[in-house]
Amino acid sequence: MSESIKRVVLAYSGGLDTSVILKWLQATYGCEVVTFTADLGQGEELEPARAKAELMGIAPNHIYIDDLREEFVRDFVFPMMRANARYEGDYLLGTSIARPLISKRLVEIAKETGADAVAHGATGKGNDQVRFELSCYALNPDIKVIAPWREWDLTSRTALIDFAEKNQIPVPKDKRGESPFSTDANLLHTSSEGKVLEDPWEETPDYVYSRTVNPEDAPDAPEYITIDFERGDGVALNGQTMSPATLLAALNDLGRKHGIGRLDLVENRFVGMKSRGMYETPGGEIYARAHRGIESITLDRGAAHLKDELMPKYAELIYNGFWFAPEREMLQAAIDHSQAKVSGTVRLKLYKGSAHVVGRKSPHSLYSERHVTFEDDAGAYDQKDAAGFIKLNALRLKLLARRDR
Amino acid sequence: MSESIKRVVLAYSGGLDTSVILKWLQATYGCEVVTFTADLGQGEELEPARAKAELMGIAPNHIYIDDLREEFVRDFVFPMMRANARYEGDYLLGTSIARPLISKRLVEIAKETGADAVAHGATGKGNDQVRFELSCYALNPDIKVIAPWREWDLTSRTALIDFAEKNQIPVPKDKRGESPFSTDANLLHTSSEGKVLEDPWEETPDYVYSRTVNPEDAPDAPEYITIDFERGDGVALNGQTMSPATLLAALNDLGRKHGIGRLDLVENRFVGMKSRGMYETPGGEIYARAHRGIESITLDRGAAHLKDELMPKYAELIYNGFWFAPEREMLQAAIDHSQAKVSGTVRLKLYKGSAHVVGRKSPHSLYSERHVTFEDDAGAYDQKDAAGFIKLNALRLKLLARRDR
Amino acid sequence: MSESIKRVVLAYSGGLDTSVILKWLQATYGCEVVTFTADLGQGEELEPARAKAELMGIAPNHIYIDDLREEFVRDFVFPMMRANARYEGDYLLGTSIARPLISKRLVEIAKETGADAVAHGATGKGNDQVRFELSCYALNPDIKVIAPWREWDLTSRTALIDFAEKNQIPVPKDKRGESPFSTDANLLHTSSEGKVLEDPWEETPDYVYSRTVNPEDAPDAPEYITIDFERGDGVALNGQTMSPATLLAALNDLGRKHGIGRLDLVENRFVGMKSRGMYETPGGEIYARAHRGIESITLDRGAAHLKDELMPKYAELIYNGFWFAPEREMLQAAIDHSQAKVSGTVRLKLYKGSAHVVGRKSPHSLYSERHVTFEDDAGAYDQKDAAGFIKLNALRLKLLARRDR
Amino acid sequence: MSESIKRVVLAYSGGLDTSVILKWLQATYGCEVVTFTADLGQGEELEPARAKAELMGIAPNHIYIDDLREEFVRDFVFPMMRANARYEGDYLLGTSIARPLISKRLVEIAKETGADAVAHGATGKGNDQVRFELSCYALNPDIKVIAPWREWDLTSRTALIDFAEKNQIPVPKDKRGESPFSTDANLLHTSSEGKVLEDPWEETPDYVYSRTVNPEDAPDAPEYITIDFERGDGVALNGQTMSPATLLAALNDLGRKHGIGRLDLVENRFVGMKSRGMYETPGGEIYARAHRGIESITLDRGAAHLKDELMPKYAELIYNGFWFAPEREMLQAAIDHSQAKVSGTVRLKLYKGSAHVVGRKSPHSLYSERHVTFEDDAGAYDQKDAAGFIKLNALRLKLLARRDR
Repeated sequence: MSESIKRVVLAYSGGLDTSVILKWLQATYGCEVVTFTADLGQGEELEPARAKAELMGIAPNHIYIDDLREEFVRDFVFPMMRANARYEGDYLLGTSIARPLISKRLVEIAKETGADAVAHGATGKGNDQVRFELSCYALNPDIKVIAPWREWDLTSRTALIDFAEKNQIPVPKDKRGESPFSTDANLLHTSSEGKVLEDPWEETPDYVYSRTVNPEDAPDAPEYITIDFERGDGVALNGQTMSPATLLAALNDLGRKHGIGRLDLVENRFVGMKSRGMYETPGGEIYARAHRGIESITLDRGAAHLKDELMPKYAELIYNGFWFAPEREMLQAAIDHSQAKVSGTVRLKLYKGSAHVVGRKSPHSLYSERHVTFEDDAGAYDQKDAAGFIKLNALRLKLLARRDR
Repeated sequence: MSESIKRVVLAYSGGLDTSVILKWLQATYGCEVVTFTADLGQGEELEPARAKAELMGIAPNHIYIDDLREEFVRDFVFPMMRANARYEGDYLLGTSIARPLISKRLVEIAKETGADAVAHGATGKGNDQVRFELSCYALNPDIKVIAPWREWDLTSRTALIDFAEKNQIPVPKDKRGESPFSTDANLLHTSSEGKVLEDPWEETPDYVYSRTVNPEDAPDAPEYITIDFERGDGVALNGQTMSPATLLAALNDLGRKHGIGRLDLVENRFVGMKSRGMYETPGGEIYARAHRGIESITLDRGAAHLKDELMPKYAELIYNGFWFAPEREMLQAAIDHSQAKVSGTVRLKLYKGSAHVVGRKSPHSLYSERHVTFEDDAGAYDQKDAAGFIKLNALRLKLLARRDR
Repeated sequence: MSESIKRVVLAYSGGLDTSVILKWLQATYGCEVVTFTADLGQGEELEPARAKAELMGIAPNHIYIDDLREEFVRDFVFPMMRANARYEGDYLLGTSIARPLISKRLVEIAKETGADAVAHGATGKGNDQVRFELSCYALNPDIKVIAPWREWDLTSRTALIDFAEKNQIPVPKDKRGESPFSTDANLLHTSSEGKVLEDPWEETPDYVYSRTVNPEDAPDAPEYITIDFERGDGVALNGQTMSPATLLAALNDLGRKHGIGRLDLVENRFVGMKSRGMYETPGGEIYARAHRGIESITLDRGAAHLKDELMPKYAELIYNGFWFAPEREMLQAAIDHSQAKVSGTVRLKLYKGSAHVVGRKSPHSLYSERHVTFEDDAGAYDQKDAAGFIKLNALRLKLLARRDR
Repeated sequence: MSESIKRVVLAYSGGLDTSVILKWLQATYGCEVVTFTADLGQGEELEPARAKAELMGIAPNHIYIDDLREEFVRDFVFPMMRANARYEGDYLLGTSIARPLISKRLVEIAKETGADAVAHGATGKGNDQVRFELSCYALNPDIKVIAPWREWDLTSRTALIDFAEKNQIPVPKDKRGESPFSTDANLLHTSSEGKVLEDPWEETPDYVYSRTVNPEDAPDAPEYITIDFERGDGVALNGQTMSPATLLAALNDLGRKHGIGRLDLVENRFVGMKSRGMYETPGGEIYARAHRGIESITLDRGAAHLKDELMPKYAELIYNGFWFAPEREMLQAAIDHSQAKVSGTVRLKLYKGSAHVVGRKSPHSLYSERHVTFEDDAGAYDQKDAAGFIKLNALRLKLLARRDR
């Protein structure tokens, strides 16, 4: 807190916590605050954030409200999906992938407004602080980052509400008690953690889920859909061309209806402890399966296996906040190189919590019925070749066996 | 065919194809045949195979019928499951993992009976020939392996049936026409490929599935179960201790009932082409998810991430037939080392095609509610540490950004 | 040999073996032969090959003699060097990297001349057959490849020489006896294997080396040189700008003089056995060390470590002949992405068999004396940050230790 | 500094810096100090450290002086060498590998003496603080670690010497001026960094080297030696059986004489900046080359390549201080599994800075002259097998080429 700050860009949701941070920044640093509120498809009205910022004395030209949905899906979600990234086998990285984009805008707005610092509302125990700060530093090594949760003494809910009331920040009634869990949302997913979720033996209560119906309440009849891909990215749903964000939103509607994309996970945070989270990634889960489906007929084995080997590291980098690191970019270059012919159509069946690929076709298909058929293959494949193939693959094993017997 | 063979051990199912092979071996090589029929939980009576072998003149002491179910699950399936192995992201390797065990017994029986060769019924287009032969050569570098499908001229169904009839091999009525697809089954899974499955755009017809009900016909109410693990392996279902094979069989029953473990996949064969397969791994799918669940609270992050990075290579090795290769054994040593504390209980919800982990607990849990809580943590974690952690993780990115701006 | 071939492009050195192949192709396939002789810097006159081909009846417009030195170094050697590729820890892949280029020209010439096949002089035991053929098939899947050494019955030296004499092919006197070893040479290296080298316990006799002086005979005074790099590739020696091939040739002269780049290796061939080879890569060894030197100050740690992790697979792909495979191209995309700022100057000391980096500087250096100094760093680095960094890195280990004690 | 400490075990060299730390600990924490001085083969007398500790009031039973040389080489250096570990391609990790052992003893002595803390003399800019602390926390999660360099205000040489003089700590004359560089030494290596080495463009002055003669001053005649290995570890030099530490010491003598193992490197520290170091690893360099030599004939290709792929991560773990982390132990399990037959003899030529393998033999050799020979191989290898091997390896590339043309 000893540093002198003149102007700070705050990642501002309009909610109680970031409103308290806004006041606290003004009070503590005696600095001007610029608010930045991003529409990443979290499904909330953003204009109330503007009104609230104005109420707290922020100059209109220092209130930024940006619709980043298309950029989010096009430049962050889709590139990540090209990698089939899942952290620790399952998590589709919905929160992780939003942080670099927010950071990018924070740094850009800092430049536009001549601010010397940015601030975020992430706590000192989580991954998000790391993601925000690594991204900001990578984009502007001289920026200062303020993380109020690591600095202030408002360490209890009561202290926070007291501060709010003392500073004329409206406190919604439902925020007065302890919230049962904390959430993050964007077009890709909603996550929840903490409170009722903290015992990993207890099943996540159904009321925690907000983006999907309970599979038991989903339609009794399956629904079939198609997704078209061009060069590794989704471009159409059921034959209808859509922009990236529109496509993901439409898949979210389908996923919600069929109860798809719920995940209950104990994961390893970058800061060293395990946490239990609940994720809902309805459209993302469908999309991820579809992407693997179209790759299955258009990617060569060598490319596919290399991607599978690189994926855990790639996912870890995004989870840990290294989106703007050279090694992530190198891996992206490799992955993107593989997607040139990942085009075609995947058919999926959605039913009570599941999305399964049931068909795939492509003008660039590598699947050769002639080669694989049990029937006459008209000489496409000479079975005798397999004898030599096996013999030479076995040679080292034979030499080994001779030595070791 | 030029080699002189005295006695050959044939992997014999008792079905039409391997019966034809039996006769063909006798006719072509003028050699004695020893039959080996393994019970791997494929769900067929084995005594008819004995009768048939006797009918074809095999001496009783040259007819081997072994129940390998416990060895199969204990020494092959479970070690593989410790690695969370899935080939190309999805396939649980049900066929691949059975081949090394069959090969091991073929080589053992060859030694016991003084045979100089073994024979199998895999075709020249598939992976199984490779798996059988690499395993056999690794276990006995001097064994000869006969693969009739790569040698003979019975390349059409008609030719095969003609040969059968000329040689008094009974041909079941349903084998006279072209079978609509070919299958392989064992305690872990049933796979089907070929014929009606050869167009990857067409949905797999429901009649192809034999081990699971259609999820749409599964019970409308979810079922909750628990699986207990000890040192990485399942030991009990719903609190009842079971042997490995018994446990897997019981999970198969549950998976069948709830329509769990169906997979429709286009995969890359080791011999170079893509094939489309349908897999049913009911118990295996439940078990695999449960194993990841228990690992999520008992494995350290470093161990877990290393396992995830090694897995694709491990799965590829098994798929390609390198179970008995030093690099698979090295990876197994690493994986097994990680499982010492992978003990505890996982609770799963089974419902209409899905198995989801909903709870996990362990006497060896690394999950620390104290560390992760949003509430007062009594000093377990000092949020200020995060500042230094981020600063040093960011240092190289800052230096990079300073250089590159 | 059953296939009908009309015209074949032969990789033709002008030597005895490929001259025999030329005749054998004419005799066996009754086909036209197009000869292709590449100057890859092997240090032999190529015009005698033209004369010899003409003598054997090849039409002048069917005799191709190409100087590929610049393309070889620019498009094959340098990209590989960007990866710091060494097979099995040591081998700089001098033979492996030449094969894809020769194959590319074979396929191009086949297209230009309307040939339906290509032929090479590699034996059935080595890696080169694989490299030639995989490359050719990847570039033209319909090309036929003839590998006479796998087909003919000239399996002894005597038979070969008999065939030559019967066909009026001149046999140099020194080829009449058994050659003591076989060699391959190009601008990057000379390799030798076989014969006197076949016992891996026996030291390689000095007469086997042809590209370097014995270090014991090298100058008693060290020589210092500088190499300049731009974007990962060498561009100047001692401040003098040079083309890729010119630079490598100049480094070869220096390496020869100082006895640098000798390697005696037992390696694992792709076809399954071990072989013992002797390599001389004088300029390549110097270049490889220099490249690592310039990377050491211009590459970020994340990029550098990712490159190190990917390298063994990349080297294996080149060794095994998969230059034109998608996974090699993906890795290359990642590697090339990392080289944008790998520019600057490296100073090396050459002395009696060794090349050591002794200095490196760059306008893009990431080395920060301010950060690393033991002296006052003017606040560049706050040592207290290290406490938090260590604490959070230790957290998972502490939780583990608490559990396991 | 706010924590209450009763007794602290200090890693004590007897030199000026750790003597100042000793006093500072007493003064700052008012705690008892236990000194621990390890003989890791650094080549210094240890009894003076005892005398000095006594002089500073340490009770005799609180002065620990341990000869750890055999444990160091047997349990740390050799296991690491089994992995062929080199950080960033070159560094043999001589400092990194000593830290876990020192930490282990610190924690053990803390337990024996009832100390609640340990202290070390590593600065806040380097890797050693991380290595010490991660190791200590992994072995005793409740231990407190004091790092005076991160806490105190003795941030200049002058301040340090003032403190020493005020506290009756003898200051050797040569410590009064700025030392030109800082060093660390043990049986494996000596490292130097800082001061005159801080400009990476300047050649390391010869006076910085202390463990090796300048190669230019080494004998003009090469020397040949043999090293015998058993199960991956060195056991004899020139046929004479030696303990691990004795063997390494003898190799150090040879390396010193021939000027072997000098390395000038710019490396990436875990804490985020680049540093330039000079390393001398005379015996280690010879040993490392010999180990690769014996592996080259005794390790199967699959094992060897897997080791090469795992090595960079393994080396990074040791460099970063994660010796006692589960993922290092998992990798060690894999590596150790591979070494069962890594036994035999390697012959090396030492000459003016270089150690080259010139011969290797083993009762467990996998090298088969029969298979590799250009001469008649008596049917060991059927060259025609290569055709099928290549065809099936090419199949996917052909399918790809057909699609993409």
